[in-house]
Amino acid sequence: GHIVIMGWTRHTERLVEELRANLSDKHIVLLNTDGPVIRTASITTVRGDPTRTKDQLKASTDKAWAIVVSTGDDSKTILAVLHARRLNPQALIVAEALEEENIDPIRQAGADRVVYTGGLGGDLLASAVFEPSVPRLIADLASSVEGIADLVEEPATSYAGKTFLEALVEAKKTEDKLLVAVVKHDGMIIASPPPDYRIEDGDKLIVLVKSHREKSS
Amino acid sequence: GHIVIMGWTRHTERLVEELRANLSDKHIVLLNTDGPVIRTASITTVRGDPTRTKDQLKASTDKAWAIVVSTGDDSKTILAVLHARRLNPQALIVAEALEEENIDPIRQAGADRVVYTGGLGGDLLASAVFEPSVPRLIADLASSVEGIADLVEEPATSYAGKTFLEALVEAKKTEDKLLVAVVKHDGMIIASPPPDYRIEDGDKLIVLVKSHREKSS
Ligand SMILES: [Ca+2]
Ligand SMILES: [Ca+2]
Repeated sequence: GHIVIMGWTRHTERLVEELRANLSDKHIVLLNTDGPVIRTASITTVRGDPTRTKDQLKASTDKAWAIVVSTGDDSKTILAVLHARRLNPQALIVAEALEEENIDPIRQAGADRVVYTGGLGGDLLASAVFEPSVPRLIADLASSVEGIADLVEEPATSYAGKTFLEALVEAKKTEDKLLVAVVKHDGMIIASPPPDYRIEDGDKLIVLVKSHREKSS
Repeated sequence: GHIVIMGWTRHTERLVEELRANLSDKHIVLLNTDGPVIRTASITTVRGDPTRTKDQLKASTDKAWAIVVSTGDDSKTILAVLHARRLNPQALIVAEALEEENIDPIRQAGADRVVYTGGLGGDLLASAVFEPSVPRLIADLASSVEGIADLVEEPATSYAGKTFLEALVEAKKTEDKLLVAVVKHDGMIIASPPPDYRIEDGDKLIVLVKSHREKSS
């Protein structure tokens, strides 16, 4: 299955770049009315309105593995998600919310995961006033193609049964990785668990790794 | 000195909230033409165009301690920064860049720190596809008023002379803090330094702490 990206906003270019770097085997279909026309071995552009079913079908939305909706307008995003979910009950649907109050409606429309991008810019501008290194580190951690470090999610299997402190020391010593958080089976995140927290089989870890990837153009 | 926030965008509300939570002693003056009129003990709204000197003076920009510029338009931001810098050579000026290519011009106009918010949304949308816990953790870490954890910058004094591994273990055991990065004197960030990295007096640390603050309304 391919990935359909609906809409063209100032986030789309980096979205495509990150998906290319991390899911290089997935073909990407861009569906929008106004973005640049990109056609490579792995990317196809389809001209069409993400809020129209017939245009979604041009992008084979019904056969997609994942659908990412970022239209720059929450009401359009909701309509696009509703149609996409109707065409494709199985696909993973990720959508951007510009306003906090639209997170739930977009989820109700059928999105599995909603990313609220509105708050983050304000958070980072504020941090730049009183702790300027923090927004720089966060921007680095958020991107796998920029900067020197990256947060990745991985199974905790090899650390199951150990305490967080034991795992922290072992991961740092043997692999130079920094364990940052545990993700429970239900998705709950325990950031920086207490030293004696015991890691369970089935937990996932969020790990800070050094990024050795060359910056892609 | 007070903080002047120029412009009103979808980032401004959270920006104000974070500044209130972290710099509660600083009065905030909002300068814009179209935001809500907020008047509290600690916030004043001034109606005016951030790109006009006479309006900047209405907000006492010349006496400000810090100026944050987020206009939603990089060319307006540049003009606002140029005037602000001319009126106030000493103030800390933080500005938002919407496009990556405008980071340098905004800095040249006189901003001390430029936050590029355009890339981050795309990074987080992409991560939501292949590692959904990561954008949730990043959103939490970026905000000190939302979520359960926070990244803060603090002097490394008490760990000077120790290796990163020693400091990592001690901070986790005694204070339940997670050391994430070292910031050198020149601002260079070493994310997750090697185990034998020796912390110097004058280094700063970026630390993940549990957030005990009540969510503000
Ligand atoms: Ca990175
Ligand atoms: Ca937080």
